[in-house]
Amino acid sequence: MLSQEENERLSQVGPGTQMGSFFRNYWIPACLSEELPERDGAPVRLRLLGEDLIAFRDTTGDIGVIGQNCPHRGASMFFGRNEESGLRCVYHGWKFDTSGQCVDMPNEPPESNFRSKVKALAYPTRERGGIIWVYMGSRVTPPVMPALEWSLLPPEQVSLSMLVQECNWAQAVEGGIDSSHVGFLHGKLGRTFAQIPAGTGRYYSQKDNAPRFEVMDTEYGFVIGARRNAEEDSYYWRISQFLYPFYSMIPPFGTAGNLSGHAWVPMDDHTVMMWEIEWNPSRAITEEERAREYANKGTEGPEGMLPPSTGPGGRWHPRLNASNDYMLDYELQKTSWFSGVPSTQIQDIAIQESMGKIFDRTKEHLGTSDTAIIHFRRRWLAAAAALEDSDTVPPGVDVPDTFSVRSASMVLPKTESWTAQGRRVWHARPDVAVASI
Amino acid sequence: MLSQEENERLSQVGPGTQMGSFFRNYWIPACLSEELPERDGAPVRLRLLGEDLIAFRDTTGDIGVIGQNCPHRGASMFFGRNEESGLRCVYHGWKFDTSGQCVDMPNEPPESNFRSKVKALAYPTRERGGIIWVYMGSRVTPPVMPALEWSLLPPEQVSLSMLVQECNWAQAVEGGIDSSHVGFLHGKLGRTFAQIPAGTGRYYSQKDNAPRFEVMDTEYGFVIGARRNAEEDSYYWRISQFLYPFYSMIPPFGTAGNLSGHAWVPMDDHTVMMWEIEWNPSRAITEEERAREYANKGTEGPEGMLPPSTGPGGRWHPRLNASNDYMLDYELQKTSWFSGVPSTQIQDIAIQESMGKIFDRTKEHLGTSDTAIIHFRRRWLAAAAALEDSDTVPPGVDVPDTFSVRSASMVLPKTESWTAQGRRVWHARPDVAVASI
Amino acid sequence: MLSQEENERLSQVGPGTQMGSFFRNYWIPACLSEELPERDGAPVRLRLLGEDLIAFRDTTGDIGVIGQNCPHRGASMFFGRNEESGLRCVYHGWKFDTSGQCVDMPNEPPESNFRSKVKALAYPTRERGGIIWVYMGSRVTPPVMPALEWSLLPPEQVSLSMLVQECNWAQAVEGGIDSSHVGFLHGKLGRTFAQIPAGTGRYYSQKDNAPRFEVMDTEYGFVIGARRNAEEDSYYWRISQFLYPFYSMIPPFGTAGNLSGHAWVPMDDHTVMMWEIEWNPSRAITEEERAREYANKGTEGPEGMLPPSTGPGGRWHPRLNASNDYMLDYELQKTSWFSGVPSTQIQDIAIQESMGKIFDRTKEHLGTSDTAIIHFRRRWLAAAAALEDSDTVPPGVDVPDTFSVRSASMVLPKTESWTAQGRRVWHARPDVAVASI
Repeated sequence: MLSQEENERLSQVGPGTQMGSFFRNYWIPACLSEELPERDGAPVRLRLLGEDLIAFRDTTGDIGVIGQNCPHRGASMFFGRNEESGLRCVYHGWKFDTSGQCVDMPNEPPESNFRSKVKALAYPTRERGGIIWVYMGSRVTPPVMPALEWSLLPPEQVSLSMLVQECNWAQAVEGGIDSSHVGFLHGKLGRTFAQIPAGTGRYYSQKDNAPRFEVMDTEYGFVIGARRNAEEDSYYWRISQFLYPFYSMIPPFGTAGNLSGHAWVPMDDHTVMMWEIEWNPSRAITEEERAREYANKGTEGPEGMLPPSTGPGGRWHPRLNASNDYMLDYELQKTSWFSGVPSTQIQDIAIQESMGKIFDRTKEHLGTSDTAIIHFRRRWLAAAAALEDSDTVPPGVDVPDTFSVRSASMVLPKTESWTAQGRRVWHARPDVAVASI
Repeated sequence: MLSQEENERLSQVGPGTQMGSFFRNYWIPACLSEELPERDGAPVRLRLLGEDLIAFRDTTGDIGVIGQNCPHRGASMFFGRNEESGLRCVYHGWKFDTSGQCVDMPNEPPESNFRSKVKALAYPTRERGGIIWVYMGSRVTPPVMPALEWSLLPPEQVSLSMLVQECNWAQAVEGGIDSSHVGFLHGKLGRTFAQIPAGTGRYYSQKDNAPRFEVMDTEYGFVIGARRNAEEDSYYWRISQFLYPFYSMIPPFGTAGNLSGHAWVPMDDHTVMMWEIEWNPSRAITEEERAREYANKGTEGPEGMLPPSTGPGGRWHPRLNASNDYMLDYELQKTSWFSGVPSTQIQDIAIQESMGKIFDRTKEHLGTSDTAIIHFRRRWLAAAAALEDSDTVPPGVDVPDTFSVRSASMVLPKTESWTAQGRRVWHARPDVAVASI
Repeated sequence: MLSQEENERLSQVGPGTQMGSFFRNYWIPACLSEELPERDGAPVRLRLLGEDLIAFRDTTGDIGVIGQNCPHRGASMFFGRNEESGLRCVYHGWKFDTSGQCVDMPNEPPESNFRSKVKALAYPTRERGGIIWVYMGSRVTPPVMPALEWSLLPPEQVSLSMLVQECNWAQAVEGGIDSSHVGFLHGKLGRTFAQIPAGTGRYYSQKDNAPRFEVMDTEYGFVIGARRNAEEDSYYWRISQFLYPFYSMIPPFGTAGNLSGHAWVPMDDHTVMMWEIEWNPSRAITEEERAREYANKGTEGPEGMLPPSTGPGGRWHPRLNASNDYMLDYELQKTSWFSGVPSTQIQDIAIQESMGKIFDRTKEHLGTSDTAIIHFRRRWLAAAAALEDSDTVPPGVDVPDTFSVRSASMVLPKTESWTAQGRRVWHARPDVAVASI
């Protein structure tokens, strides 16, 4: 339970807010590289931390991310002409380069030097791992980018997809680090326990529905250990990572699968872009895996989303949404899906949106399964307050290499420490195999 | 005319408001029994007095009405699994019975007794007369239900229908007790006066378009007498009932017809559920009468409404609405309907919605025909204030038997008292015939 | 740049605001005469200066403009029956004449004189030049109407069209008096400079893209001179008029064309009705010119607008609008239109709406090309303040004849004064030829 004041501090991300300043210390995934496929191509609208921005790829291939409104008289740069190393406002022809500098002002007298004094809001950008990243903070030289494993692999080893959620970022994060909901919200009926091979992770997960949670702080965030009874003398441990400011890594099942995780990027107080990332440190993602992950993106399929759009409504909106009750079907509840909502991704979104745009945390009743959530709030609120109160650099910003971690799942003798054993395998290094059962 | 402050007090119905507390002392018709047809069937969203609630019929047939948001972390119970005598949240499997008690918490350790401490918001319910009633007040033992005649008859003698109006409850009520509008708003052209048989109620109603109104307070509300000139030495009296907190009973015409009335149940400050009730104390409603009353519910007919929906937009929204100007047709004004709106029910809704979501009563000009409206406001505001100021039980709550009344219409010699004569027939008793001319 | 306080003063037009009071001193074009084609025909909804009004043409042909809500209990007069020299509310039959006087109150006793005491809000109206004008000010006798040339010509010499813009009136005006944007926003690619005949206005406009602006105050508003280099010893002058409170006149090109201008009538703080007026002082507008001006009104064409509607959404909404990104096409940007938006009228609307509902003028960077805009704001804010502070009659109100002016374009020796030469031709008199090059 949070006080109303804490709840607002946790939720608000706009310029000048405490959590908004906190986020602005980190590199932010802004959009896919493939959304800006060609030089001098169409610009793309972004909404990040409550700011309206325009991204464009200039003639040299550099990415600009500038304020939506032209500094002259506020016309939207979304209409801009992307040409000859700059984005030109169509109202009076003012042109800005990727640094925001005005480089042409054709409606002013040639002798005027007004041009050199005008600068658009512009943020530093990087391109890595198929993603355009933006730094919205105040440092002149941005920090080094975090060494997230999936951001450093070749493109064939990574699959990326996104969905817009119509709710605050924090309740999406809380759903993501709450592995206790998986067996319920995402449950499938008709999968009888007897059908699961004994001794597997899925087997132990079903056998013990009420895991105990432990949390360990790290430089880059925290690790969550979910303990279930395995055999007489052993526990099944599922070890998740949660990294500043909004990345999760979910433990894999089985020995052949991929690693996966999420990023929840706040668009504004009431909207969050949910990134889903799947990667494999040692081989390419197969077409089959990729198809599943991109699940009918832009198609008519039941798990699909609205076709990508550059319109004001934005991109990546799911077709199953509040307006159609997420295609909830009470018959499915009896025969197939525990939730009645026919898509795993949409189940999360449906529930998180149903809590309200900003969940009222003064009214909740947290149990022991909410350990990670309580920990997350405490750490994030404290870090954001420390930044405001004493200018403390938010954690992880200057230790980018420590972000090079993975999730893991393993069976351990009851006497062994999950953190000691986990530490051996959760570092993302080419010579370390994924630990998964 | 009301002051701005009075107007707000009259209109606001949410938790903690003066009128909201007043309403919470009474039993409220929440939805039709037929909207929860089967045990363990689909739950239904309700919005009552500014609160979002979920209704469900459990395995034993009992009705639960609980808060929409799960007490755990706020997921909507609309997604809930209605099974084995309780509604189970699909997020983490927490389950609540009709009393709101948490009866299962499968994601917590078995030894935990947290479950026994968690209770969902839940309101007592009753089922009577084809309706599910809810008591949202603070008494541990709810008051006895009001003995409204139509709520106690066998189902074949009653017809129920509803429409959502996009305006405050009070202006809907004011339309309902204002019989002076009937000859205008609901008027039909081409019905010449000469075609109406002399000496009937319809005849006198047309002959004298400007009735005088008298009002008499009762324990359960008030009675309105509308006096028209009949013959030289007689008056035609139309006697309506208005009962706490929002029921009307409209005088019948002719000798063969049914009694009818309304309930205006506030959904929130800007929305009201208009119930239309038709009943006959001595015989079944005919199929023909029922068809007219249920007027094309869910069909494509001109008087129809949108198909019932469990979606967030809710149920019982009329197809003729503000977005299509209620299918107002100025040609019809010249040839058929005085108002140009082609449905009696929709005429009321169109006019009441056109006054604004909450009518600004600081700007009105009331005439003598508004006597009942003035009386209604004064009584309701006083009762709500007395509840707040001195904890006075709102009128009628503890005299449920007095609600057993009817409307009436009659011709009386000018020398006779309408209240004395009316009182003889307006009690709803099997041995008393409906008084109607 | 304006302060936040100045920006609000400039933008707000509702009753009681400074700029709202200013506007209420002038006659306002409310709708087309043809929108009220017949006596006793359908009434029309108006929204003017933040007020909801109903216009109707009565049995004698007079125009009434009255408040939307009936003075009795607030029902919308849009449902009103327009009959026998008055508009009758369908709720209780109260009837009002064009002066707002209640002339019938059939639901009150015949002996009542309440009727004589009830008056609807009503504004004086005039019909001139195919337009219904309304005076919303406080004078008992409205001022004389301004002698705008186009309002006094026979109908065949004038073409009128309108579009609703979803933004504040002032940013629409600022687009209208900012001729520096024309060569950019409205530019066509593929029109090579070499194709334009030397020595024409279009030729000089293209040759010098950065005109210098001068402004001269007049009794009725101000004149804007835009100076471009023509030949060695001459300037090309484009002389625009801007008239109180919201009329522009744009200089013509060539010698055969028509004069044109705009009126930006504030509907409320966030909506403005853009009138486009084309006229010829000496001959009829041709069918071809009219077709172009009425550009596909109500049709499916790419420059069209939504069919006129009397619904609550109102009339004259363009089909190319924010919901479809104004059909912006980045391919067109490369091949045809500089802006990529395929309609001249819509280009202005797209850009002006993209600045936000009310443009935040605390963030702008004005250049020398914004001279007229700066002048406009200063004069309008000063006049509105003088009205409030010292009851100073807003400029132009009592000198209606001075509005009889035109725009002009001309080449002058560098030594000659544009105001001295302009004055000879910018008076709109039958014996003065249009000055245009």
